[in-house]
Amino acid sequence: MKIRITLICLALFPAGTIAQTPDIRVNSDRLNDTMQHMHSFGENDEGGSDRVAYSSHNHVALGYLSGLMLQSGLRPQVDMAGNLVGRRAGRIDGFAPIVAGSHIDSVPNGGHYDGVVGVMSTIEVARTLHEAGIELDHPLEVVIWSNEEGGKTGSRSWAGTILERELDLPSLGEKKLGEGMTYIGGDPERLAKNARGPGDVAGYIELHVEQGAILDSDGIDIGVVEGIVGIKRWYITVSGFANHAGTTPMDRRQDALYATSLMVAKVRRIIMGEPGRQVGTVGRLDVSPGAPNVIAGEVLFSLEIRDLSMEKVTRLFGEIEDSLTSIAATNNVEVSFDQYYESPETPTDPALQDLVRESAATLELSSLDMPSGAGHDGQSMKGIAPVGMIFVPSKDGISHAPSEYTSPEQIMNGANVLLLTILGMDELLR
Amino acid sequence: MKIRITLICLALFPAGTIAQTPDIRVNSDRLNDTMQHMHSFGENDEGGSDRVAYSSHNHVALGYLSGLMLQSGLRPQVDMAGNLVGRRAGRIDGFAPIVAGSHIDSVPNGGHYDGVVGVMSTIEVARTLHEAGIELDHPLEVVIWSNEEGGKTGSRSWAGTILERELDLPSLGEKKLGEGMTYIGGDPERLAKNARGPGDVAGYIELHVEQGAILDSDGIDIGVVEGIVGIKRWYITVSGFANHAGTTPMDRRQDALYATSLMVAKVRRIIMGEPGRQVGTVGRLDVSPGAPNVIAGEVLFSLEIRDLSMEKVTRLFGEIEDSLTSIAATNNVEVSFDQYYESPETPTDPALQDLVRESAATLELSSLDMPSGAGHDGQSMKGIAPVGMIFVPSKDGISHAPSEYTSPEQIMNGANVLLLTILGMDELLR
Repeated sequence: MKIRITLICLALFPAGTIAQTPDIRVNSDRLNDTMQHMHSFGENDEGGSDRVAYSSHNHVALGYLSGLMLQSGLRPQVDMAGNLVGRRAGRIDGFAPIVAGSHIDSVPNGGHYDGVVGVMSTIEVARTLHEAGIELDHPLEVVIWSNEEGGKTGSRSWAGTILERELDLPSLGEKKLGEGMTYIGGDPERLAKNARGPGDVAGYIELHVEQGAILDSDGIDIGVVEGIVGIKRWYITVSGFANHAGTTPMDRRQDALYATSLMVAKVRRIIMGEPGRQVGTVGRLDVSPGAPNVIAGEVLFSLEIRDLSMEKVTRLFGEIEDSLTSIAATNNVEVSFDQYYESPETPTDPALQDLVRESAATLELSSLDMPSGAGHDGQSMKGIAPVGMIFVPSKDGISHAPSEYTSPEQIMNGANVLLLTILGMDELLR
Repeated sequence: MKIRITLICLALFPAGTIAQTPDIRVNSDRLNDTMQHMHSFGENDEGGSDRVAYSSHNHVALGYLSGLMLQSGLRPQVDMAGNLVGRRAGRIDGFAPIVAGSHIDSVPNGGHYDGVVGVMSTIEVARTLHEAGIELDHPLEVVIWSNEEGGKTGSRSWAGTILERELDLPSLGEKKLGEGMTYIGGDPERLAKNARGPGDVAGYIELHVEQGAILDSDGIDIGVVEGIVGIKRWYITVSGFANHAGTTPMDRRQDALYATSLMVAKVRRIIMGEPGRQVGTVGRLDVSPGAPNVIAGEVLFSLEIRDLSMEKVTRLFGEIEDSLTSIAATNNVEVSFDQYYESPETPTDPALQDLVRESAATLELSSLDMPSGAGHDGQSMKGIAPVGMIFVPSKDGISHAPSEYTSPEQIMNGANVLLLTILGMDELLR
């Protein structure tokens, strides 16, 4: 009954918040200043970022961001996994929060934009709302997820999927995951407290750099993310017979590397053999014994397939499996397949996609619907809340490297789209 | 004048030695016993041989063989490179020696037949001649070459091609080459004394296991070696662009590994595209960065081509270079070629080939003309003396492994062909 009354109250608000505040914008100079300030936490001699999860750079940066949250009308708190959560209250009692965030941890010698663009923009959005005196119906939680690069640990703690044994695994820095959480203020013993269920979060939105070159090379401002692709990975072993490269005639060889070369070529032909944005990659390949004068006896190579539809991933693998088995038979070698990784796809919410697209249009920015080929914390919200994602361009598509770059104007565009999208979500998710 | 007289004297001997002694045969049981005894010098727990050059196993075995040489009417002496040379005098004063031999050093965890079959058979041949009271016109030198597996060091000292800096290089065992020579009785300071020139050796003959599967799988007793193939080796670098495997669409990739797969397949098609026994091998392939979720930015792979005709090797490489350059252009990657090794071909002497073939026929053994795809000490005799080589089967073509095997009967056949061939050489090379 309580919920019903609330809904009736909401219906009394006219027109909606976007319509009421169409001209509100973030402070781009301030956003650029705080982005720049973040460089100081872990910048290395190559100009890259060594702010790996649970490092002292990471820790000090979280302290700085706590202060920034306070200035932005957010009450900062560290949760059990070391996520820094800055909350502002909503107008309507009992509403689940809109959650927005990203991460500030980098890969070793990474860049200054991956994750950081989303975090600084989201805090700037909160500060803009705070300064403008705009209250939302929903509480807003700005979350800085811990250890995204090392396995999305912070966001997965909300999904309740962290296994106890993971706490003993090494992080990308010097600490084990459990030690790291404790170091930045978490409490791995009480990790279960972090778990959210359906309804605990009204909606999740994340702004992130594309980490690909599509927006940059096509000159598009905003990516409307249709979902985060599902991934499957296999190791494929091709077994022939290692033999003397001088004394074994060409027609008596069981050359595992020659057979593999046909297979690698075939993988690409199958992946590209039908329309769509599926990708398939052979990125690792180890030859044994690997000497110039010995015919390869065994090759191990990786296969990764990604698509928004896991059904398509599975079907394409089926085709590849059949083709490679046949190539093996023709070339007198054996082939075996070992799947070792699977990450399910996370479609974004169509209504949130619409909001992002419309917000870009309101701002007269160009936009493109596209999958996210990379993984993001939003995946952890699958089944808990509707998820939305906004991409801004990555110069030359470069990411996880010191030369990673997104311009102040592109960041401002993304932050303004995020601002309008959050205002829209506040209305939509009532 | 002296030579002329000698020649006239020789012409007085009727009919030739083979014809005189068609029924002489080695003692197969004794040969098998000495072969077995050699196992004890360096046999490891896997049943393989660790008798690497300059090891104590190698040293002790040479002691045993010195004794065996004495029993066989050979006067053993160690030369400057640590080659053990057992000599018997010839009937004709001033004749250069017929040299026959092979090696007893193994690769680490090698087999008991590579090299050893030739050494034990050659000593058995000398012993057979000694027991039968057969004198040759030429002196006979049975040579156990040092460090064949680590670079044909012993035989190359006869060719005078050892560089001073090589003496400081590591061997396959614990010693440097120079130290190793000293250890087994040589004197690297006086290595120049070993050098032979044209005319210093009347002819060189070597019996060896095939180290390939042609004789074994085709059931042939004897390989008449047409020559030792020439070898060229290159490293080929393919440079694309390392990029995110999730965020880079298939049609925007510069995938060094995909391009390489087309190249590896093409190499085989070109090598097999014309008649002949040329072989081409890609045996090593390194991918960078080599992660399942990163598109390969760079691939380095080896290319080796072998043939009896170096002109053909060079021509085939030219075709490969053109094709690979074109594949690179089509696939938006760069390719570069770096030749780093060349070993010239060593044709065997046609008259010695005839002798080997006829000796096999006399013994009612089947024979096959074939190239040696592997390198051998005989290469060092190029330009010094006519070279001949005899192959016996290697079970399943396996070599450089504990499971290397040639049967006592096959070894006996080879030793008897060697015996008749040496008798024939004594006549032919006058």
